[in-house]
Amino acid sequence: MDYQALIEEVYKEVQNENPRGKVADYIPELAHVDGNQFGIALVDLEGNVFGVGDYQTPFSIQSVSKVHTLTMVFHVFKSKLWSRVNVEPSGNPFNSIAQLEYEKGIPRNPFINAGALVITDALCSKFDRPFHQISDFINELSGHQCVLMNPEVKQSEQNHAERNTALAYFLKAYKNFENKVEDVLDVYFSQCAIEMSCTDLAKSFSFLANDGYSIFANREIVSESHARRINALMLTCGFYDESGEFAFRVGLPGKSGVGGGIAAVMPHKFSIAVWCPELNEKGNSVKSIKALELLTDKLKFSLF
Amino acid sequence: MDYQALIEEVYKEVQNENPRGKVADYIPELAHVDGNQFGIALVDLEGNVFGVGDYQTPFSIQSVSKVHTLTMVFHVFKSKLWSRVNVEPSGNPFNSIAQLEYEKGIPRNPFINAGALVITDALCSKFDRPFHQISDFINELSGHQCVLMNPEVKQSEQNHAERNTALAYFLKAYKNFENKVEDVLDVYFSQCAIEMSCTDLAKSFSFLANDGYSIFANREIVSESHARRINALMLTCGFYDESGEFAFRVGLPGKSGVGGGIAAVMPHKFSIAVWCPELNEKGNSVKSIKALELLTDKLKFSLF
Amino acid sequence: MDYQALIEEVYKEVQNENPRGKVADYIPELAHVDGNQFGIALVDLEGNVFGVGDYQTPFSIQSVSKVHTLTMVFHVFKSKLWSRVNVEPSGNPFNSIAQLEYEKGIPRNPFINAGALVITDALCSKFDRPFHQISDFINELSGHQCVLMNPEVKQSEQNHAERNTALAYFLKAYKNFENKVEDVLDVYFSQCAIEMSCTDLAKSFSFLANDGYSIFANREIVSESHARRINALMLTCGFYDESGEFAFRVGLPGKSGVGGGIAAVMPHKFSIAVWCPELNEKGNSVKSIKALELLTDKLKFSLF
Amino acid sequence: MDYQALIEEVYKEVQNENPRGKVADYIPELAHVDGNQFGIALVDLEGNVFGVGDYQTPFSIQSVSKVHTLTMVFHVFKSKLWSRVNVEPSGNPFNSIAQLEYEKGIPRNPFINAGALVITDALCSKFDRPFHQISDFINELSGHQCVLMNPEVKQSEQNHAERNTALAYFLKAYKNFENKVEDVLDVYFSQCAIEMSCTDLAKSFSFLANDGYSIFANREIVSESHARRINALMLTCGFYDESGEFAFRVGLPGKSGVGGGIAAVMPHKFSIAVWCPELNEKGNSVKSIKALELLTDKLKFSLF
Repeated sequence: MDYQALIEEVYKEVQNENPRGKVADYIPELAHVDGNQFGIALVDLEGNVFGVGDYQTPFSIQSVSKVHTLTMVFHVFKSKLWSRVNVEPSGNPFNSIAQLEYEKGIPRNPFINAGALVITDALCSKFDRPFHQISDFINELSGHQCVLMNPEVKQSEQNHAERNTALAYFLKAYKNFENKVEDVLDVYFSQCAIEMSCTDLAKSFSFLANDGYSIFANREIVSESHARRINALMLTCGFYDESGEFAFRVGLPGKSGVGGGIAAVMPHKFSIAVWCPELNEKGNSVKSIKALELLTDKLKFSLF
Repeated sequence: MDYQALIEEVYKEVQNENPRGKVADYIPELAHVDGNQFGIALVDLEGNVFGVGDYQTPFSIQSVSKVHTLTMVFHVFKSKLWSRVNVEPSGNPFNSIAQLEYEKGIPRNPFINAGALVITDALCSKFDRPFHQISDFINELSGHQCVLMNPEVKQSEQNHAERNTALAYFLKAYKNFENKVEDVLDVYFSQCAIEMSCTDLAKSFSFLANDGYSIFANREIVSESHARRINALMLTCGFYDESGEFAFRVGLPGKSGVGGGIAAVMPHKFSIAVWCPELNEKGNSVKSIKALELLTDKLKFSLF
Repeated sequence: MDYQALIEEVYKEVQNENPRGKVADYIPELAHVDGNQFGIALVDLEGNVFGVGDYQTPFSIQSVSKVHTLTMVFHVFKSKLWSRVNVEPSGNPFNSIAQLEYEKGIPRNPFINAGALVITDALCSKFDRPFHQISDFINELSGHQCVLMNPEVKQSEQNHAERNTALAYFLKAYKNFENKVEDVLDVYFSQCAIEMSCTDLAKSFSFLANDGYSIFANREIVSESHARRINALMLTCGFYDESGEFAFRVGLPGKSGVGGGIAAVMPHKFSIAVWCPELNEKGNSVKSIKALELLTDKLKFSLF
Repeated sequence: MDYQALIEEVYKEVQNENPRGKVADYIPELAHVDGNQFGIALVDLEGNVFGVGDYQTPFSIQSVSKVHTLTMVFHVFKSKLWSRVNVEPSGNPFNSIAQLEYEKGIPRNPFINAGALVITDALCSKFDRPFHQISDFINELSGHQCVLMNPEVKQSEQNHAERNTALAYFLKAYKNFENKVEDVLDVYFSQCAIEMSCTDLAKSFSFLANDGYSIFANREIVSESHARRINALMLTCGFYDESGEFAFRVGLPGKSGVGGGIAAVMPHKFSIAVWCPELNEKGNSVKSIKALELLTDKLKFSLF
């Protein structure tokens, strides 16, 4: 398979069609990003990198980081985690608090905001310097020092933190939150403010295409069985209330962020990261989704 | 791969552990079924059948038939269908009406009751003798005359039809239901009352493991792209509000019915049907889920 | 108190301000009504009638009839009724089905559609010719033969009955509906299609201002204690999800209908009916509410 | 009317029947209160006090204080307030956050927790030393220095503040909260920790029975029209999701607190405070409700 030719073809078709959306504007720092940027990086199982467009430009990975933190905690806690977070698709917007009330403080899954806060809280309970350890972990997965945290983005998120703060206190009311709210939010906003290129992001997801083994870290990150479960979670819950649509149209496990990035994997073939800042109304990148849909159409295979 | 040895091993382990549930009791005819029955049939891409336990005993396939009717309509209507039914997981019980109100008469997906009623309604608009054509279609997929409709089960469902009738009228209130309510319900209850063995059910799902081509019908049933989309829908929505859990633990696209049957596929490998009448509280067969979980663990692969 | 002068003053002020709404259009027969009609009739405890504007013109009383049917059943069943219907305000639109699901088939109160259907169902269980007996009862309350049922309006409602049919079947699914759905709906649509003038409607509510005794029927209709409870229900639940607003601005127990009529009482003083077909977005008559608000302001008293 | 004989009769009947509930246990300080205490104080329009049982014992007034703070803000802000808080009954538990999400940050009414927080926030915007001014106001209404704030109760509430903190941040996310969360909560928990006797509480509600004029403060507290509106709000929203039931059974405007106190008024007759710490499952005092029901039955009148 000539992956370089494939992603170039996909890139061109998307640029020709040029579907547009709206750059995230809930924080000023994200609203300033140039919406015309677009890049694709694909990493095969041997570690070869194929790239096109702005694939080397770092961008704000935002919620894509929730896969990294889940992986760190998944590895450590195993089954205990699942008494605190469920694994069902939400069908509601990512920051909904109503569902959390109906389900008595147990978030639907680790990728909606409430669930990701529980994951970061668990991580804060187990690690001394949690954000350093998140950075170290992602650097290891990517094979080199690549993680940068943008302090302006973090500050901007902290200035608009009311809703996440409400979620955290609500979790605390249900005894599903162990640490100080401000401490966990500090780590949470730091992880969301991480900037990486498509190349490094695709590398950091490579272990999920490879039964849990990272060719860049040169070690098993999680067991084959855990890798499968993380992929299943991404497929059913990775795109908020558009997860069904993404599975239907694309058919790959993946995770999106409001920075416009999507990381996805085709198990036993490749990992891939696509980035374009303009989002649809569900908060997912318009061009990135289009690119992945074209890719699986051209490959004539997906997960299914 | 020695599939016969594999399913026998799985069968034995499940029987040794012997996890129990509760036979569906919402209609008397289903409540009378012997809960000890348990069978597995696996069909590979060449059409070889492997079976163990009660795999030749016909049982009430119930909601598994929703995959067959969706396939019939998917083929005919293509994109028009998706203005009437969504493709998102529900996160609510299968017969919920609240979500239908919040989403203005568009069911979440074709496998919850409201969505399946829209599918059967669409089918009634296009076919003259809809239930005959459903039977013919399933017979063709299974390679021989195997479909029987149990009139006592159908009558029993009709005697307890209030909730489905309410759903149908509610859809009609939103102009998302074209035919007479009683006509569509008659077809709907007939399809739910179909009885088939694990063998025939697995055969009838074989095309979904084979990019849309049925070795038994000897023709392409749906395009490769449609087969992938039906599989995606089964993965995200096939098990009601336990779909995430099934994807997480098992990782195969599948569909369950309250008769205790589950049909599933491993694309490009096999289709499989498992049956045991005792259900968990979500309405899915306890032993059937356990068997499929063991199967993918032993195979060391799933979709992911 | 010179009631005639009072209601004339109110009438003039409302006409000068001339607030407008939109005639109900969910059924064609109601949509054709002239929106400029406006009348007020007040009946004091001695039975004197004071009127202004179109107070002698019959109009479709619609949901105002729910007070009459509740009274008929209240009298007969006493406490048993309250295991089937609750007495809490709904806070949801009058035809919502979601709440009915969350509360397992027990309608919030007797004035939302689901609750009114339970009342009419109970009435069908107890009376042989339920609509005749409803007519007789209202005629008695008004002191003469005044009730007419408009068959075109009834037919029009039956042609758009999907949502009420869904509610009825849903109630049946929860075993909270005893009779045939079509039989009860027939009575229900008949009672909604009753036409009466403001004068007769105000007379028919007079017993609620008079501790349960009707000066027109010349007998105690319900006990003093029951009259108080019916008034309490009207105050908390009589105006759908605008009940709080009406209590806040007007402060009288009352019941509105989508025909634009409102009947209300000031206990120990008078009953009153106001009618103008143009509705606000909650389905309550704009001018009728305005008139009642001015009235209690001018009187310098309300319930409170 | 011999009010002393009346409340003594009511007191005896309630004690004979002796219905029991459960002392509030969400904070330790309230859980320690002796559940056997029970008192009634009635204040007529001339300012005469009638009392029985533990009517002179101070108790934690909790949410009853929300009527005092609403009155302070009602007077100052008039119509502007109602863009920030609605006046509809909630039909949900007092501390629900789901409804707040569905209604985009506008609380249903000023008596559920979210609405009361908005009121206290508005109060913090207008007054320099808000809790002092609350105390002064209530002292004035009661005719002497009677307000004491229990610091252990306040501290206990602050130690279990997660849910109210979540509500406050959630309101802030919708721009419906002006001051610092901790500052407003400090005032809020102080007002909830106020202790008063039935006598003083009944006195402090006297102006609501008297068209807004307080005989103890010797001045008009609010206009006659505002007094009517506050009474209407208490009737439709004063007892959480049991407001309809209370209106139905008792028929007086009132407000309950989890300390077991209820203050109510019969306009143009009297104000009354009843206290017994044991609550029903909705959080309202069992004996206090029973006493008020007997009272209106014996009087043969209520609001209606």
